[in-house]
Amino acid sequence: MIEDKNQQRTQLSDLGEFGLIDHLTKHFKIKQNSTIKGVGDDAAVLNFDKKKVVVTTDLLIEGVHFDLSYVPLKHLGYKAIMVNLSDVYAMNAKATQVTVSIAVSNRFPLEALEDLYAGIETATKIYNVDLIGGDTTSSNTGLLISVTAIGEIESDNVVYRSGAKPNDLLVVSGDLGGAYMGLQVLEREKEVYKVNPNSQPDLEIYSYIIERQLKPEARQDIVKLLSDLNVKPTSMIDVSDGLSSEIIHICKQSKVGCDIYEEKIPLDPQVISTCEEFDIDSTTVALNGGEDYELLFTISQDDFPKIKANPNLTVIGFIKEEKEGVHLVTRADTRIPVKAQGWKNFNS
Amino acid sequence: MIEDKNQQRTQLSDLGEFGLIDHLTKHFKIKQNSTIKGVGDDAAVLNFDKKKVVVTTDLLIEGVHFDLSYVPLKHLGYKAIMVNLSDVYAMNAKATQVTVSIAVSNRFPLEALEDLYAGIETATKIYNVDLIGGDTTSSNTGLLISVTAIGEIESDNVVYRSGAKPNDLLVVSGDLGGAYMGLQVLEREKEVYKVNPNSQPDLEIYSYIIERQLKPEARQDIVKLLSDLNVKPTSMIDVSDGLSSEIIHICKQSKVGCDIYEEKIPLDPQVISTCEEFDIDSTTVALNGGEDYELLFTISQDDFPKIKANPNLTVIGFIKEEKEGVHLVTRADTRIPVKAQGWKNFNS
Repeated sequence: MIEDKNQQRTQLSDLGEFGLIDHLTKHFKIKQNSTIKGVGDDAAVLNFDKKKVVVTTDLLIEGVHFDLSYVPLKHLGYKAIMVNLSDVYAMNAKATQVTVSIAVSNRFPLEALEDLYAGIETATKIYNVDLIGGDTTSSNTGLLISVTAIGEIESDNVVYRSGAKPNDLLVVSGDLGGAYMGLQVLEREKEVYKVNPNSQPDLEIYSYIIERQLKPEARQDIVKLLSDLNVKPTSMIDVSDGLSSEIIHICKQSKVGCDIYEEKIPLDPQVISTCEEFDIDSTTVALNGGEDYELLFTISQDDFPKIKANPNLTVIGFIKEEKEGVHLVTRADTRIPVKAQGWKNFNS
Repeated sequence: MIEDKNQQRTQLSDLGEFGLIDHLTKHFKIKQNSTIKGVGDDAAVLNFDKKKVVVTTDLLIEGVHFDLSYVPLKHLGYKAIMVNLSDVYAMNAKATQVTVSIAVSNRFPLEALEDLYAGIETATKIYNVDLIGGDTTSSNTGLLISVTAIGEIESDNVVYRSGAKPNDLLVVSGDLGGAYMGLQVLEREKEVYKVNPNSQPDLEIYSYIIERQLKPEARQDIVKLLSDLNVKPTSMIDVSDGLSSEIIHICKQSKVGCDIYEEKIPLDPQVISTCEEFDIDSTTVALNGGEDYELLFTISQDDFPKIKANPNLTVIGFIKEEKEGVHLVTRADTRIPVKAQGWKNFNS
């Protein structure tokens, strides 16, 4: 799959660290006025004038967060940027810069890193952010990507996780569970490929959910939409670990409870049909799947008329007093306590 | 050595990601006015008013950058911060915040990470910086630390690598080669330990160079000193990869040449005696050793009277026209072209 034996292979050791960084980043253009000095000195220099600065960072590790047997490096580079920008947007901020550090083993030729950086460059172009620095080193095993994203925001506009109030509405952008079901399809195809490397899978009917897994988009557009609609959420978080985990974060930090309505959770038809095919409950997938990179936020009921007609936004719940707890109200009208699934990485 | 079999072992999976981050960071205090929101939301929120912001990032990887058989985790945490603050100081800036991401395999118990974070906390206290975020995940192999450091500076005070002018003086803080020779001693002791685990090495006579390797200090004090002396360097870089590599960076980016005087290179007596013991040329060690985290900078000759009496600063060279090239002037008065040693990591 990814490691095409016929591709040109240039050894990384032929370039050295500085040659490698230069080679990989020379095509990147500076786009933001706030970037005074990007790659090439001990540190980047930025100017945010009187705006506030937001900073977030995430690690992506081969074998833990991605499997190169079915993740193209170009998509991986793109996704590594999305994962981080999503956190900037979850503060209601504008993303402006990223740093990208990578550790790679010698099994990766230069051409593989060029693919990775092509994806990073595409992401920085589309999302209008500058690559301003990073580190490149060898690893004894696989590939590791560490991204730090920086954004700017007027002080009054920052949205924390902690501002939800009883009677607020809980709203989510887009739809949920697609990235998780895309992963299930890709994992199944990997097993098929092991048995029969000549199989030609037809993944057309899974195109949406596979794209949700391999090439997610951070919801910059939702931040702009809310601004255009003159809606400032009372709290916001991005859906990276799964809806239930994110709702619990908001409720815990805002000291509120919440009812989530199962029937309201937005699901793409491909998610529903693939859940049926895999015999998995689609609500469980939406609650615990993760990696959707949608925005989950609360708004005052006064703002409901402004968002109700928008197909990108779905009201899925209602904020209550803290003592009421966090519950899923099922289609059968039973109330089930919502629990975070916790962190599975250390158990795998 | 480091992995004491008797120590208490708490499995990381007992805590989960959020429990782990909370546990490791709960003792950290916010010290900087510019930190509005640190750990605990999708991103940190910072306020630099009208100051400029500098950002730098570095990866440290087990087996490439450190060997846990002789590097205590507490020192490693401290050093990971120093490596990054050093880049902030090399811009002539004040370090204000750091993010720390770690990837760890299951072989590390919670207590090991507590040691690592104790070192990080000590560094943030002494250097007055805030831990504002990070990511914690599992790895399939060893330990990896990714740090991003942020600093602030008045626009006019930024010092780039590119400002050196012919006739400027080349100055270095502290002394060079210690970290490299400390590493040679530690590597030798590791081999001795393999043969005889009961050996009790007396490392007292190497105490300075071992400390230079295990617990380096970033030269925050030099930035303050230069400010107090009213000296603004024309260019500056930190000595992380070795003196020759850093001089070449300054010369290339400033489009100048340079003569470096071998007899002027500051060496600690322990470096000289250990070089003799190991039969290594001390000038070669100073030029190519790396990890000294001293500051290398150029100043106008007009500023020479202000620095000449300072024991922390040594004039080691003279900036010339670009066409003159970069040379080491030896004690025997021969001129040897200086070449960067390049990047050895990918060859190892």
